[in-house]
Amino acid sequence: MFKDLGVQPYTFPMPVLLIATYNEDGSVDVMNMAWGGVCAENMVALNLDEDHKTSRNLKARGAFTLSIADLPHIREADFFGIATGNKMKDKFERSGLHAQKSARVDAPVVEEFPLTLECKVVECQHTVYGFRVLGEIVNVLADEKVLDEKGKVDPARLNAFVFDPFRSGYYAIGEKVGQAWHTGAELVKK
Amino acid sequence: MFKDLGVQPYTFPMPVLLIATYNEDGSVDVMNMAWGGVCAENMVALNLDEDHKTSRNLKARGAFTLSIADLPHIREADFFGIATGNKMKDKFERSGLHAQKSARVDAPVVEEFPLTLECKVVECQHTVYGFRVLGEIVNVLADEKVLDEKGKVDPARLNAFVFDPFRSGYYAIGEKVGQAWHTGAELVKK
Repeated sequence: MFKDLGVQPYTFPMPVLLIATYNEDGSVDVMNMAWGGVCAENMVALNLDEDHKTSRNLKARGAFTLSIADLPHIREADFFGIATGNKMKDKFERSGLHAQKSARVDAPVVEEFPLTLECKVVECQHTVYGFRVLGEIVNVLADEKVLDEKGKVDPARLNAFVFDPFRSGYYAIGEKVGQAWHTGAELVKK
Repeated sequence: MFKDLGVQPYTFPMPVLLIATYNEDGSVDVMNMAWGGVCAENMVALNLDEDHKTSRNLKARGAFTLSIADLPHIREADFFGIATGNKMKDKFERSGLHAQKSARVDAPVVEEFPLTLECKVVECQHTVYGFRVLGEIVNVLADEKVLDEKGKVDPARLNAFVFDPFRSGYYAIGEKVGQAWHTGAELVKK
């Protein structure tokens, strides 16, 4: 039996992604985003409110980085979604995390997060629903700790977590349950 | 130490979402998508290749549904990402799943998936990177089994899983590890 829940922004899982930009004075701003991610082989889409400090920063600098939050820094990642850089001038400092300048784009790389996409702003759009930023991925930086012996990212080592839009919980990633393009292959031959 | 991985479509976790549409003869087509999801309170964005059967169907009918795959149907969900409705005329039939017509939009609702967004096509765009569809969420349907005593979706009951773009694995959702806007709240007061 299906029950109607009305109009709700309910896809699951949602990622916990951190957008890092430079403020006008060169200090670091970081915000937490669930509504966005990869939209092409070399592109990401961010769906933001235009009044975020991040939105102004990435229009001014034409660049941002996008990091995956990990469990050891869940407290900081959540904080980046509560506090606003518009009002809290020392937001990044308070987190206790550290950043270095990206070698490729005019944006900071948060050193504690395990995986970071370095991105150039390609397009800022005012869409029918709000502000949307397209970023070109110019490189991905991975902490060596999350790489397997072949140099590939091992999702189990990322310690990433998931956002639930139903009750605003965070959930860990569980065990491996299948392999894409294999798990359902027998139905193709049926 | 960071290592450069080059240009890669690496955000994590990615969802496993199923787009269901009607073919021109009224039969059902379903495809599996990782690049898309909620972009506003009442909207979703789909990033697709325009030559998918799904793309043609949703242009013709102006509607689709978007479902969350669950572990009991991981085999079928993966199959929907392998086979193409352009070549396999009985794709949905082979999956063994069932569909009913949505009461609100001109698209099928797959009965076995636990949560489904009923969507109207708002915009089909040719962007700098490819084909993008904006859908307005007109209702969310939830299987009663995934609702808690207050009628809210319980993520643990969804049995959803995650796609990993690094090694194409599927992972279960793990235990609850935090609560948004609480886990990092002490840093705000610091």
